[in-house]
Amino acid sequence: MPLVRVHNFSISLDGFGAGEPQSAEAPFGHAGERLHEWMFGTRFWAEGGSAGMDDSFALRHSVGIGAEIMGANKFGPPGWQDDPDWKGWWGPNPPFHTPTYVLTHRPRSPLEMEGGTTFHFLSTSPEEALAIAQEAAGDLDVRIGGGATTVREFVAADLVDHLHLVQAPIVLGRGTRIWDGLEALEDTYDIEAVSSPSGVTHLTFTRKAGTAEVPA
Amino acid sequence: MPLVRVHNFSISLDGFGAGEPQSAEAPFGHAGERLHEWMFGTRFWAEGGSAGMDDSFALRHSVGIGAEIMGANKFGPPGWQDDPDWKGWWGPNPPFHTPTYVLTHRPRSPLEMEGGTTFHFLSTSPEEALAIAQEAAGDLDVRIGGGATTVREFVAADLVDHLHLVQAPIVLGRGTRIWDGLEALEDTYDIEAVSSPSGVTHLTFTRKAGTAEVPA
Repeated sequence: MPLVRVHNFSISLDGFGAGEPQSAEAPFGHAGERLHEWMFGTRFWAEGGSAGMDDSFALRHSVGIGAEIMGANKFGPPGWQDDPDWKGWWGPNPPFHTPTYVLTHRPRSPLEMEGGTTFHFLSTSPEEALAIAQEAAGDLDVRIGGGATTVREFVAADLVDHLHLVQAPIVLGRGTRIWDGLEALEDTYDIEAVSSPSGVTHLTFTRKAGTAEVPA
Repeated sequence: MPLVRVHNFSISLDGFGAGEPQSAEAPFGHAGERLHEWMFGTRFWAEGGSAGMDDSFALRHSVGIGAEIMGANKFGPPGWQDDPDWKGWWGPNPPFHTPTYVLTHRPRSPLEMEGGTTFHFLSTSPEEALAIAQEAAGDLDVRIGGGATTVREFVAADLVDHLHLVQAPIVLGRGTRIWDGLEALEDTYDIEAVSSPSGVTHLTFTRKAGTAEVPA
């Protein structure tokens, strides 16, 4: 049965997935690139990178995924909805290569990009967005791509089967926090923590058998 | 030069050092004993325990300490100040064996216990409490014993040289959070994260050379 997965979602020790303020110049606010440095060092990210533990975790981001769902804050800086020409951060060939659903209260027409990515814009609930994405993904899994608010909403709605967080050794103090409103995830998930030589700690949450929500 | 140290301070993945509500029956609220299970499995805690990584970290709690400072919330349940007979959670021979300073807005007379522990009660700032404890500790270090609010206040005041947190793989969702108001600790400390086979992750913050506050 296809799964709903989160991969490579980086947070600070205090749980922030992005700093503030977020802008076109600083997509992650005062966090800068520090949350994601671990990934830049991997072969997954660039030729010549490490093929160690971080690469093994990172690579799964791309395996077996048939669609992505992301929040409006991942697709563009605050106010992108006012720019009819905004097509995301990623240039003409975005790294998704599947149908990609952007949750926004101001949907627009689909954007077909190079390399198999088509952005669809939805103003709907997590449950309904997931049903649409799963239909498009067929036998493959759906990735929840972030940001922190979107990941948190899907986890809170008990829709996520596999959650991979990467805790970077910094304290941001402010921004968008992954944990707010979540509690007792250890009841639903087996949680594993493993620190990497790069300094980050990989946290994986694997849904326990028998805890899946019964499909409606 | 003597140091100011925090050891074995356990937190949840979302940074809570205790759950809620705290009471005489449940000192850590809904967290129960789950934050500290890693320690109960060590030789440091009880004969027959493990002598592995967790024990190595835990043991340093007791080495080279000449005084402890703790917050009112560690000394007793809410309202202990109204009970003139309250002498702490730990029985006649508390595990401190040094002068121990309890920060409370309602100080009382010192309590001399067995085994070298004397509780002193102070209504003062972190800086003043530390000066008093350092005077008592002489050449030895001062331990900041918790709870989360007290640790956070001493870290925020830049008084801590060595901070050891132990992250348990649970999500509490509510309680007393260690991180609130802290930011950019990576500027002051070298931060190391290492996961243990027991499931916890040990976080150590070691003050960088040249970042010590200049004594007044």
